[in-house]
Amino acid sequence: MSEGQSYIKIPYEKLLSLVESIFISEKLSPDYAKAMADVLVMADAQGISSHGVSRTQRYINDIKKGITNPHIPHDVIRSGTSFEVWEGNHGLGSVLSNEAMKRAISLAEQAGVGMVTVRCSSHHGITSYYTHHALERDMIGIAMTNTAPLGIPTGGVEARFGTNPLAFAAPSTGKLPPFLLDMATTNVTRGAVEIKLRNGESIPDGWAIDKDGKTPTDAKQFLADLLDLKGGLLPLGGSSSGHKGYGLAMMVDILTSLLSGGEYGINVRDTTDTAACVNHFFLAIDIKQFRNIDEFKKDMDNYLTMMLDTKRADPLKPIYYAGQIPYEKLQVAKKEGVSILHSVYNELQKIAREHNLSI
Amino acid sequence: MSEGQSYIKIPYEKLLSLVESIFISEKLSPDYAKAMADVLVMADAQGISSHGVSRTQRYINDIKKGITNPHIPHDVIRSGTSFEVWEGNHGLGSVLSNEAMKRAISLAEQAGVGMVTVRCSSHHGITSYYTHHALERDMIGIAMTNTAPLGIPTGGVEARFGTNPLAFAAPSTGKLPPFLLDMATTNVTRGAVEIKLRNGESIPDGWAIDKDGKTPTDAKQFLADLLDLKGGLLPLGGSSSGHKGYGLAMMVDILTSLLSGGEYGINVRDTTDTAACVNHFFLAIDIKQFRNIDEFKKDMDNYLTMMLDTKRADPLKPIYYAGQIPYEKLQVAKKEGVSILHSVYNELQKIAREHNLSI
Repeated sequence: MSEGQSYIKIPYEKLLSLVESIFISEKLSPDYAKAMADVLVMADAQGISSHGVSRTQRYINDIKKGITNPHIPHDVIRSGTSFEVWEGNHGLGSVLSNEAMKRAISLAEQAGVGMVTVRCSSHHGITSYYTHHALERDMIGIAMTNTAPLGIPTGGVEARFGTNPLAFAAPSTGKLPPFLLDMATTNVTRGAVEIKLRNGESIPDGWAIDKDGKTPTDAKQFLADLLDLKGGLLPLGGSSSGHKGYGLAMMVDILTSLLSGGEYGINVRDTTDTAACVNHFFLAIDIKQFRNIDEFKKDMDNYLTMMLDTKRADPLKPIYYAGQIPYEKLQVAKKEGVSILHSVYNELQKIAREHNLSI
Repeated sequence: MSEGQSYIKIPYEKLLSLVESIFISEKLSPDYAKAMADVLVMADAQGISSHGVSRTQRYINDIKKGITNPHIPHDVIRSGTSFEVWEGNHGLGSVLSNEAMKRAISLAEQAGVGMVTVRCSSHHGITSYYTHHALERDMIGIAMTNTAPLGIPTGGVEARFGTNPLAFAAPSTGKLPPFLLDMATTNVTRGAVEIKLRNGESIPDGWAIDKDGKTPTDAKQFLADLLDLKGGLLPLGGSSSGHKGYGLAMMVDILTSLLSGGEYGINVRDTTDTAACVNHFFLAIDIKQFRNIDEFKKDMDNYLTMMLDTKRADPLKPIYYAGQIPYEKLQVAKKEGVSILHSVYNELQKIAREHNLSI
C-alpha cells in the first residue's frame, strides 16, 4: 500500500482550523470559512470521505473561477407565515444551507412548522449536517438537495435525476444518539460502483446499468458514458422495487427545485468549468408545540430501544438505527482525531503552503 | 378457475352507491358513508384490491363491536399558526383523514404550509387518496400512516414497524396525469410474498425472511409466525440497501405517531378482536405562495416528459412515473366499470341483503 492509500489521524480541531485558514486566505469571512470547513471535517469524521476535506481544492476552484459567489447574499423572493423562498445567487452551499435551516427553525418557533427552499445554491456537503441545527433546538429537521443526474428512471437507460439525498433527524433524550437518516435515493452511490469495478469484482444486480441496459463490467467506459448521461445508478429498491426510489428522487427534485423555481432533472449539470446550480429544501418542526418535549424524547428512546433489542439474524452482529454509527464515529474522531488519506492531507498541506499558511 | 377467482365489472357509480348504502344502513351519516365507500372503490378502480371494497365487512365489524367509533368527533389537542394535533378517538380512518387533509389545506392557505397529525385513528385505505384534495387546490400534498408491524430492522428477524406508507402528490397542467407517489416503505407487500408462496414459487432475495433469518418457503408457517412478529418483510432496498427503507419506515412512525403522542412500533397491534389505533400525518404546501402556479405546472409537465422520453432498456416497454398507471386505470374504470373478484361482489350482495337493501 502506497502512502497515498494509507490513512493518517489528524486532531479534529487542527484539521478544522487548517481548512478554515485556507478558506480565510481565499478572502472568505471567518464565519463563512468556518461553515465551509465544519461540514467537510464532519463528513470525514463520520467516515464519509467522498464529502470530506478532499473537496477543499474543488470549492476553492469554484470560487476562484467566479462560478460560486461567496460575497453576494441571498435574496428572499417569496415569504409567508411559515415559509421563505430564497434565490441563492450561486452562493456557497454550506453557508446558504446553514442560514436557510436556521431560518426554517425561526419560522417554526413562530408557526410550529418552518420551511425554506433555496434555488441556485451550490454543493453543500453532507445533507444531514444541517439537520443538526434542528436537533440542537429540540426540533425535527428535514433537509434535501438535488444534484447532477446519475439516477435512471425505472425501465430507462439514461440518467435523468440526481442521487437527490434526503436527511431526517429527530431528537432522543441523549441516553442514545438521535435518530438521523441521511440517504441517497439511488440504491448505492457511484463511489460504491467504482470501487467494485476497480477491484475487478462484479456489480450486484440492481446497482447500476450501462448505456445498453446491462450490468456494467468496464469501470472506465461506465464512468465516461455517465458524463453523457448514458447508463447510471438504479434507484433505491433496485430491480424489484426501484420504482419507489425513482419516485422518491423525483419527490426531492419537486420539493427542492420545482417548488423554488430552480433547475431540475437533466438541467442540473456539472462540467469541469461549471458547478451545478443545485437547489435545497429545509423543514423544521417545533415538537414542543405539538406535545410535551420530554415525553416525545422518552418515547424516542423507547422506540429506538425497541429496534436495538430486536432478535438478531446473527447473534454477533448488532442492530443499528439510522445515524447511530456516524454519531459514534464522530465522538471517536473528536477524541482520537480524524482519519483521512495521507494523499488528501498532503494535498491540504500543499494548498496551505500555496496560501503561505504555517501548518 | 372457479367463479370466486374470476372478475366482474361493476359500473363505478353503482359500486360506490352499493357500498355507501351498506354504511348508511349501519347508521353512518351520508357524508361519512360516502367517505368510507369512496376510498374503497377508488382502490379497486386503481387495481389495489387489497385496500378495496373487500374491506367493507371488516370495517362494519369494527363499528359493530365498538372498536372504531363513528359518532365521536375528533379533538384538537394542540394547534398553532400552521399545524394542528388531533386525538382521533379511534374514529373512522377515512373520515378523519379527509377532514385532517382538508384542515392542512386551510392552514396552508393562511401560512403557506399546513400540517395536521392524527393520533388513534383507524385504517384509512389507500394513503394516496387524501393527497387528491391537495391536488384539487393546486397544492403539494403529503400523507403518511403507520400500521401494525410487518417490517424488520436491518440485521433482525422480528417485525418491529409497519409497512408505513408515504404518499406525495404534485399537480401538473392536466396534459399529463399529476405526479403521485404512494409507496410502502417495505420492499414489497405481504400480499406479494403470499402469492409467490401459494403459487409454489421461490421468494426473491430481499423480500422477506422467516423467524430464523432465512428466505421463507412455507407460506402457512410464515404467516402464522408473523402474528407473533416473528420474521417479516425486508425494508425498501432489500439486501443491499434495506437500511434506507428501515430508516424511512422509522421516519413515518416518528412523524405520524411520536409527534402526535400515538402508538408506535410493536405497540400498534391488530387482533381478531381489535383494530390498531393507527396514526396519520398530513402536509399541504400552497405552491402559489412559493411561485407562479402556472409556471410550476409547466415545469412539472417538462419534468415528467423528461422522464417519459428517457431512452428505454426495452423499446417495447414504456417508462412511467409514479401515479400514472393508477390514474389511467381510474379513468378506464370510471368509463368501463370497476373490476372486482366475483367472490367479493357476492359477499357485498350478501351484506346488502342482510341490510335489507335492494341491489
